[in-house]
Amino acid sequence: MKPVVSIIMGSISDKDVMSKAFEILDDFNISYEKKVMSAHRAPEEVANFSKSAINAGVKVIIAGAGGAAHLPGVIASMTVLPVIGVPILGKSTAGVDSLLSIVQMPSGIPVATVAINGSANAALLAIEMLALSDNSLQKKLLEYREKIKKISLESNKEL
Amino acid sequence: MKPVVSIIMGSISDKDVMSKAFEILDDFNISYEKKVMSAHRAPEEVANFSKSAINAGVKVIIAGAGGAAHLPGVIASMTVLPVIGVPILGKSTAGVDSLLSIVQMPSGIPVATVAINGSANAALLAIEMLALSDNSLQKKLLEYREKIKKISLESNKEL
Amino acid sequence: MKPVVSIIMGSISDKDVMSKAFEILDDFNISYEKKVMSAHRAPEEVANFSKSAINAGVKVIIAGAGGAAHLPGVIASMTVLPVIGVPILGKSTAGVDSLLSIVQMPSGIPVATVAINGSANAALLAIEMLALSDNSLQKKLLEYREKIKKISLESNKEL
Amino acid sequence: MKPVVSIIMGSISDKDVMSKAFEILDDFNISYEKKVMSAHRAPEEVANFSKSAINAGVKVIIAGAGGAAHLPGVIASMTVLPVIGVPILGKSTAGVDSLLSIVQMPSGIPVATVAINGSANAALLAIEMLALSDNSLQKKLLEYREKIKKISLESNKEL
Amino acid sequence: MKPVVSIIMGSISDKDVMSKAFEILDDFNISYEKKVMSAHRAPEEVANFSKSAINAGVKVIIAGAGGAAHLPGVIASMTVLPVIGVPILGKSTAGVDSLLSIVQMPSGIPVATVAINGSANAALLAIEMLALSDNSLQKKLLEYREKIKKISLESNKEL
Amino acid sequence: MKPVVSIIMGSISDKDVMSKAFEILDDFNISYEKKVMSAHRAPEEVANFSKSAINAGVKVIIAGAGGAAHLPGVIASMTVLPVIGVPILGKSTAGVDSLLSIVQMPSGIPVATVAINGSANAALLAIEMLALSDNSLQKKLLEYREKIKKISLESNKEL
Amino acid sequence: MKPVVSIIMGSISDKDVMSKAFEILDDFNISYEKKVMSAHRAPEEVANFSKSAINAGVKVIIAGAGGAAHLPGVIASMTVLPVIGVPILGKSTAGVDSLLSIVQMPSGIPVATVAINGSANAALLAIEMLALSDNSLQKKLLEYREKIKKISLESNKEL
Amino acid sequence: MKPVVSIIMGSISDKDVMSKAFEILDDFNISYEKKVMSAHRAPEEVANFSKSAINAGVKVIIAGAGGAAHLPGVIASMTVLPVIGVPILGKSTAGVDSLLSIVQMPSGIPVATVAINGSANAALLAIEMLALSDNSLQKKLLEYREKIKKISLESNKEL
Repeated sequence: MKPVVSIIMGSISDKDVMSKAFEILDDFNISYEKKVMSAHRAPEEVANFSKSAINAGVKVIIAGAGGAAHLPGVIASMTVLPVIGVPILGKSTAGVDSLLSIVQMPSGIPVATVAINGSANAALLAIEMLALSDNSLQKKLLEYREKIKKISLESNKEL
Repeated sequence: MKPVVSIIMGSISDKDVMSKAFEILDDFNISYEKKVMSAHRAPEEVANFSKSAINAGVKVIIAGAGGAAHLPGVIASMTVLPVIGVPILGKSTAGVDSLLSIVQMPSGIPVATVAINGSANAALLAIEMLALSDNSLQKKLLEYREKIKKISLESNKEL
Repeated sequence: MKPVVSIIMGSISDKDVMSKAFEILDDFNISYEKKVMSAHRAPEEVANFSKSAINAGVKVIIAGAGGAAHLPGVIASMTVLPVIGVPILGKSTAGVDSLLSIVQMPSGIPVATVAINGSANAALLAIEMLALSDNSLQKKLLEYREKIKKISLESNKEL
Repeated sequence: MKPVVSIIMGSISDKDVMSKAFEILDDFNISYEKKVMSAHRAPEEVANFSKSAINAGVKVIIAGAGGAAHLPGVIASMTVLPVIGVPILGKSTAGVDSLLSIVQMPSGIPVATVAINGSANAALLAIEMLALSDNSLQKKLLEYREKIKKISLESNKEL
Repeated sequence: MKPVVSIIMGSISDKDVMSKAFEILDDFNISYEKKVMSAHRAPEEVANFSKSAINAGVKVIIAGAGGAAHLPGVIASMTVLPVIGVPILGKSTAGVDSLLSIVQMPSGIPVATVAINGSANAALLAIEMLALSDNSLQKKLLEYREKIKKISLESNKEL
Repeated sequence: MKPVVSIIMGSISDKDVMSKAFEILDDFNISYEKKVMSAHRAPEEVANFSKSAINAGVKVIIAGAGGAAHLPGVIASMTVLPVIGVPILGKSTAGVDSLLSIVQMPSGIPVATVAINGSANAALLAIEMLALSDNSLQKKLLEYREKIKKISLESNKEL
Repeated sequence: MKPVVSIIMGSISDKDVMSKAFEILDDFNISYEKKVMSAHRAPEEVANFSKSAINAGVKVIIAGAGGAAHLPGVIASMTVLPVIGVPILGKSTAGVDSLLSIVQMPSGIPVATVAINGSANAALLAIEMLALSDNSLQKKLLEYREKIKKISLESNKEL
Repeated sequence: MKPVVSIIMGSISDKDVMSKAFEILDDFNISYEKKVMSAHRAPEEVANFSKSAINAGVKVIIAGAGGAAHLPGVIASMTVLPVIGVPILGKSTAGVDSLLSIVQMPSGIPVATVAINGSANAALLAIEMLALSDNSLQKKLLEYREKIKKISLESNKEL
């Protein structure tokens, strides 16, 4: 099945953080592809991917990166698909570097930024976008909300 | 025409910042509504709005707020529509307060965060989402990208 | 005995930090309840709790949360009981995210914020409020101050 | 009438920020006193005030200070009355200095911290504490909440 | 004369800050070109420029940008010429956004970062690089150092 | 021998950090006393100490504290002896809380602040002050500088 | 009269901030010299000054600088006289750059750091050091403390 | 072979971070020297080195330091060779101290700053400078870029 979500990460070391997005998309039965593709080490591959994504049937792009995290913004500059950026926590600046590098985009080229290491929410946000034209998906999102509410409330037993 | 985008702001003092979103949506001929509705001063109104938005035909919600900017997250907790958060610059902490209050959402409830005072990008991001099921809108986005590129390159004459 | 203090936390993972508040309230023989109740995952439960607390006889609410820590502010928006917020340290931003999300409340809806992970002080602050109309409690607070002073001074033996 | 709230500020230059607290207390008909009393320049006066406040009939102390804002913590160390700290914005560090100096109190001695320059909320928080044993005050707080909700919603006309 | 230094800026609004680099290069008689070229609005133009600069005879590239300042890093990813990044101060985060977005580059793709708004030093650093193979330029740099030392010491008269 | 330096710390948990000051003073044969004395838990003891230090023959006071680190400033407000503040690293805010709480003192009451956890330098600074009227101590400081230079240069062997 | 205090600043633009130190030293009748001497533009002059200060009879050095404020540390590396550093507020980073550049000195070479723009306290700290061997100066300091207390308390009339 | 690159570090404890620069230079067959030389503990050695480097045939200087990281700026003040600064992560402030101390240099004396702990990029930047007059080195840099791209893309197998 052709992927409707692309998950791109700047480095293989981002895999653990980004894997929470894989799990969410698996749970929702969303077809997706995942790729390591550095904005700085493989800029042409990133450009080729970004420019062709829309015609390849991709609907939403999730990009995770750390440090001077340019990947989401670079992709966003070459597509009008929604791009979701996941700032990844590194060893210095307590994650503020990747957060600001991703969120402070100039007027004209948006990146939808989620929390530092927030790849699960990146996947959920992508699904919310897909659900705009898919009622069954919207229903699944409501069920998911019910599920996490229930888990949250049931954790009271551990208190 | 029924609004497909709702722009909510925490205070009337956010109007100037948020007005850039109005302009973008006007340019793209997107029907939208705009409301001042404080998460803290009018929590029931915010709850009513958030829970009914999906059935009212709203597709995307943009919420701008400053300080302990809870508005986008509070709305997001009560709808599975995509919620875009606009952190608004205040007098202290150089805007870091509203940015972190909006972007650092817990797993399960995403908010798509844009730059501090980045309401124009919030509107563009909303349009990118709407364009997922509207080819003419996607075409307009591409034209918009061409336009801002042209303006940017033509500013070379002022150099 | 009906609880006079409610301790609410956003996630079961906050239990260890919040347990210092339990100990203080136990020491002072204050009846309290403790609940996991996420502002984002269980917003209606939080609303129901917040609106009914005052009639249930609760006097002070302590709310601990991390990241975009909206819980204290959301509760405060639906009650005129004093709400004490405990910012909880997460993995990124060195705790600044939850601190700013809790303390930077807009004019009209106060949250009494204590230190990052400062749940013991949240409990003591609650007791100081209760002691305003309970002389015996005020006396216990003075004894507590004497006790911690003594412990502090006696630690000189370890120097 | 004997003051039930004391408003202390570290410097006369804090007057403008703190005056929003005066207005709130005036609106609620709460008797209060206001004093400039620097923790660093007049430590004995601060000590005398802090130790005698409880017997003078003061119920809540509001202390505003900027920079290394020790005033609220110093007062709190010498009374078991609730002390509310107002961090005041200075020229450097964007207000982070006074916020951290006030909020990061050690275990045992709480200070209820409000937003940077948040003196109005300091007053409201004080009133919430006083209202714990004064039903008419609690009713006035509910009316105040209604009033600010109404003002907030009516500002929609300016949109 | 073919330019040996290229000065690129993300927006025409960066002109005032970057003009100090023009002055330095003029003073040293270095041929240079200056262009507005946004990494996000004109990514192909930036790519074309970056890939062709080395063959066009450019020796050093200076790139100034604000916010999520990707321009220097994007250029650096497509050339092995030294790229000097100038973080430009914006309205929020006190300049920390552009600084971290430029300096925190991943291993493999360096950007030589100077101070926030430090375009004069960007030009001087470029000249230091060019002077590695141009003794007369090195001599001019030493004279420049003498000149600024003299100006600095002579300012004592104003004390 | 009567102590000429007093080392005060806010909590016994600061002992490890402060012990580097003990070692330096021991090396220089400076008589000193060390005490745990919390500004918040034992304010009267701190006041008594601060006011009597000058007559007890103390020349310099070193005070280390973490979090809302009021101890150095509180002591400084009650003596005209030089007070050296040592900010101590805690679990949150990466040490910025204690640094700002100590260094941002208001005009009139100085605290000589050293690096976060910089107790060795606090001791050396105290010795530099004492050496102003003790040539043999100044000579020892010069020898110490020679010694650390030698150690630093000899570490080249490990490279 | 030979100066016992040297006030050095990195740039003539620091004069306004540093002039508060001049006033304090004038008030206390302390002989002092003032110089613009940049650590970066005039390093040999700084070295010559630093190495000769002790023999010239200087007792305390005050050094003010902004940005990467190396001046106090560079001077401290070449003298065992006490060096007081004054971080000067610049246009970016809200003063955090100069504060950290001055205060975070490595073990072995202390700089006594005061508040951002805190030159008045630098002068007072210098006087406290000089007063260690001058009882009349210590008495003047006590009078100064009385004076600022009085001014502070009298400002209550303006409330 | 005479070194063309000098790698200087402030302390032997910086060796591990700086060793990535050694590896890069070894890979590119660049002759280099490495030295521990503290700006604060061995200022004369640093001055001698800095002033003689240019005549000794050194082309680029890399300087790594933590905390108040003055080393790169101090060297830069005494040579017109390009100086590359490597901020080194310490225990407090999340690396912001050394970053700001290195990058915020005043106009006139540039330091080319790389990422916190970014010594590999410091070496690559040095090589880019050397390659300006060495085509074979420029070719090697292009090969290196190809190599890291390949490694990056091949890591997809681990996904």
